[in-house]
Amino acid sequence: MTLLDFDSTRLSEFSAQVRQDYDELKTKNLKLDLTRGKPSAEQLDFAERLLALPGEGDHTDADGADVRNYGNLKGIRDIRELWAELIGVDVDNLIAGDSSSLNIMFDLLTWSSLFGNNDSVRPWKDEEKVRWICPVPGYDRHFTITETLGIEMVTVPMLEDGPDMNAVRALAQDPSVKGMWTVPVFANPSGTTYSEQVCRELAEMETAAPDFRIVWDNAYAVHTLTDQFPPIYDVLGFAKAAGNPNRFWMMSSTSKITMAGAGVSFFVSSDENLAWYLKLASVRGIGPNKVNQLAHARYFGDVAGIKAVMGQHASSLAPKFTRVLEILQDRLGEYEVARWTKPEGGYFISLDVIDGTASRVVELAKEAGIALTGAGSSFPLKDDPNNRNIRLAPSLPPVAELELAMDGVATCVLLAAIEKLEV
Amino acid sequence: MTLLDFDSTRLSEFSAQVRQDYDELKTKNLKLDLTRGKPSAEQLDFAERLLALPGEGDHTDADGADVRNYGNLKGIRDIRELWAELIGVDVDNLIAGDSSSLNIMFDLLTWSSLFGNNDSVRPWKDEEKVRWICPVPGYDRHFTITETLGIEMVTVPMLEDGPDMNAVRALAQDPSVKGMWTVPVFANPSGTTYSEQVCRELAEMETAAPDFRIVWDNAYAVHTLTDQFPPIYDVLGFAKAAGNPNRFWMMSSTSKITMAGAGVSFFVSSDENLAWYLKLASVRGIGPNKVNQLAHARYFGDVAGIKAVMGQHASSLAPKFTRVLEILQDRLGEYEVARWTKPEGGYFISLDVIDGTASRVVELAKEAGIALTGAGSSFPLKDDPNNRNIRLAPSLPPVAELELAMDGVATCVLLAAIEKLEV
Repeated sequence: MTLLDFDSTRLSEFSAQVRQDYDELKTKNLKLDLTRGKPSAEQLDFAERLLALPGEGDHTDADGADVRNYGNLKGIRDIRELWAELIGVDVDNLIAGDSSSLNIMFDLLTWSSLFGNNDSVRPWKDEEKVRWICPVPGYDRHFTITETLGIEMVTVPMLEDGPDMNAVRALAQDPSVKGMWTVPVFANPSGTTYSEQVCRELAEMETAAPDFRIVWDNAYAVHTLTDQFPPIYDVLGFAKAAGNPNRFWMMSSTSKITMAGAGVSFFVSSDENLAWYLKLASVRGIGPNKVNQLAHARYFGDVAGIKAVMGQHASSLAPKFTRVLEILQDRLGEYEVARWTKPEGGYFISLDVIDGTASRVVELAKEAGIALTGAGSSFPLKDDPNNRNIRLAPSLPPVAELELAMDGVATCVLLAAIEKLEV
Repeated sequence: MTLLDFDSTRLSEFSAQVRQDYDELKTKNLKLDLTRGKPSAEQLDFAERLLALPGEGDHTDADGADVRNYGNLKGIRDIRELWAELIGVDVDNLIAGDSSSLNIMFDLLTWSSLFGNNDSVRPWKDEEKVRWICPVPGYDRHFTITETLGIEMVTVPMLEDGPDMNAVRALAQDPSVKGMWTVPVFANPSGTTYSEQVCRELAEMETAAPDFRIVWDNAYAVHTLTDQFPPIYDVLGFAKAAGNPNRFWMMSSTSKITMAGAGVSFFVSSDENLAWYLKLASVRGIGPNKVNQLAHARYFGDVAGIKAVMGQHASSLAPKFTRVLEILQDRLGEYEVARWTKPEGGYFISLDVIDGTASRVVELAKEAGIALTGAGSSFPLKDDPNNRNIRLAPSLPPVAELELAMDGVATCVLLAAIEKLEV
C-alpha cells in the first residue's frame, strides 16, 4: 500500500510519526554536506605519492624537453600517450592542459561567442539567437556557462540509453542551435551511459549549423563502481566517417582519479578543431603546467596503473552508493513517493520525489543541518519544471555520516510528500 | 671616428673585413637562440626541491583546508600572504592562480570585450572603437592579445622614467581609449623602471572612459641583477586616494623565480575588480591548482627566502648581461652604429641599430645560425616604424654560447650598417 492509497486515519498517524522523526532529526544538530561531487579524503590519499612527484632530478619529458621551462602548448607526450591509450583516441588528437577541463569548455564557448569557431560564418555574438541542446537532468556547471554567455538552453529528456534522439535530431535542424552538452558515460546526475546507437546517431546526424559542436564531457570515462569498465565508442571516428569530423569537443581529466583540484585535463578533437583552439590558446598563454603532467605520468606508469587506481576508488565509493540505495529503499520503497537511479559508475544518484516537492525537501533538509544541492540545479536556469529532481552526491562524507544524512533526507522526502497530500 | 665619418677607402677596407668576419661566422654552423626570455637550466635547478614538494602527508593549508580537493577560487592563504608581503599589497586584494599571469590578462581583456568590466557602460565588443595605449618598445605577447581582440593599439614612447606621460594623459582623454599595457619594473625590453612620479600620475590622471584599466604587469618586481631590490610604489593606494580605485589590474608570478612553466600567478586589484573577475572565474572553473601553491609556500618559507632565491638568479644572470654589454661595447662602441640599454634587472637588453637595418640584422643572424627575436616584435603588429629595435634575451644560453652569439650579432649589426651606407 502506497502513501497515495492511505486513508485519512492512516495518513494522519503516519504524518504524526514522520513529523516526530523530523523533530528528532533537528535535535541532532547535524552539519552534513551532500552538495558536490567531491572525492573523500580517503580517495585523495590514494594519490598521496603524487605530492612528492616527479621528484628531484626528474624533469625531462619523453621528447627530451625540460618540463620546468616555458613551452609546449599541447602538453608532454608522456601523459598524452598514456591518456590516448586509456580513452581510445589518436594521440595526435589529444592535448593535455592544466587541472581543469571545465576551464577548456568555458574557453571553447567563450571564444566561439567572441570570434566564432573554425566552422562559423560569424562570431556567435553576432547571431540573432544562439540555442543549445541540454539533456536534463544534467550538469549544473555546464548550464551556468551557456547561461553566462546568453545562449538559450533547450532541454531534451534523458532516456535509458542517452538523450531522446528524436528530440535532438529535430532541434539540430534549427540553424540557431549551435551545440549540445553531454556527459556520455555515467552521466551527471543520472548515471546513464549513452549506448553505441546514440553515440553513432550524435556523430552522424545532420545539423543545420555548420559550426555545431557537441561538448563530449567524458568526466567519468573510467569511473566505475564495479569491476567492469564501460565500453569505449570511437565517436571521433564515427563523426569523421560520417563527414562530420569537427562534431565533437571531447573532454577528459584526472580530477576524480588523482587530486580533484590539481589534476591534468585533456581536450580531444579533430585536427582542425585543435588548430583553431591552439591558435587562440597560444595568445592566452605559453603552455600548461608540464611538471604536474610529468608527475602524473610517473604516478600512473601505464594504463593498467590507471585502472588499478580506479579499482581503489570503486572500493571506496561502491559501499557508499550501496548504503544510499539501501536507505532509500528501506525508508521510501513501500510508499511510492520517490524513484532513484542505480548507477554503476560516476558520482551521483538522481532522486525524483513527488512533483512539486523537491525544493521543500531541500529546505527541510537544510533546516535539519543537511546540505543538499539546490532543487532544480540539474536544469538550465535552475528551473526544474516539475520541481521533482534532487541530485545526491554520496562521495565526500564517511559512511556513518552519509547514513545519518540519507536517513534524514528520507524523512524530509516523506514529510514533504505528506504536506502536499494534506493540503 | 664613427662609421658615418669613414671616407670611402676606409669604409671599403672595413667592409671587406666585416664581410670576411661574417663569412667565417657562417662556417661555424652555429645553432644559438636568443629569442625568448627563458630561464636557463642552471636557474631552473635552483628550484629543484620544488619537484618533490609539498611532499607526502603535507596537504593542508593555513586555513585547515585540503589543498588536494576542489575549491577556493582565491587560492590558499599560505602563498597569498607571502606574496602580498613581498610586493607590498593587502592580502585581501591578492588572489593566487595557476601558473600563468598571461592567462589572467587574456581573460580580463577577453571578458571585458564580451561582457564589459565592472565599470563598463556596455561590452567593449559593442563600442564603435576600442583603443589601447602601448608604450614602445614593449612586450610582444601583450600586443598580440590586443591585436587578437581587434583593439586598436596607440603607441607612446618609453622615456628614462617610464612612458611619456604627456602623451599618455592626452590619449586618456579619448573615451575610446580603454586601457594601457605596462611592465612597470625592469620593463620588457628596455629594463626601465617607472619612477614614483610616473606611478602617481598613472594612478591619478583623468580618463574619459569610466572602465579604463592599466594592466600593471609586474613580471620582474624582484628580478634584480644587483644586490638592490627595486622600490615598491603603492599604486593601488595612490589610485584609491585619487578616487580611481579600479584603475589597476596588477599581475605578478613566480614564473622566473621558480619554474617558468609551472609556477604560481597572482592577480591584485580592488575589491570591485576582483569581485567582477571572480564571478566570471567561478563560471570558468572551480579553483586553481592549490597543491602547487602549497609547494611554493613550502619552498620559499618566507619573504627572505624569496629574496635569497632572487640572489641566486642575479648571480647566474648578471655575468651574462655583463658579457653582452662588454661585447656590444667592444665590437660596436667606437662606430656609433647602435645604442643599447644597460638594465639593472629583468630579462632583456633593448638594442637599437641604424634606422632601417633591424630586420636585415635579424636576417643576417639567422643565416649564420643565430636566432634573434623578429625585428619589430616589441611593437604593436610587429611594426617598428623605424625598423631599428632588436630585443636581446641573454638568459637561456650558457656564457660561452652567449659570447659566440653576441659576437656574431655585432658582426651582423656592422654588416647591415655598411650595406646601408654603401647603397
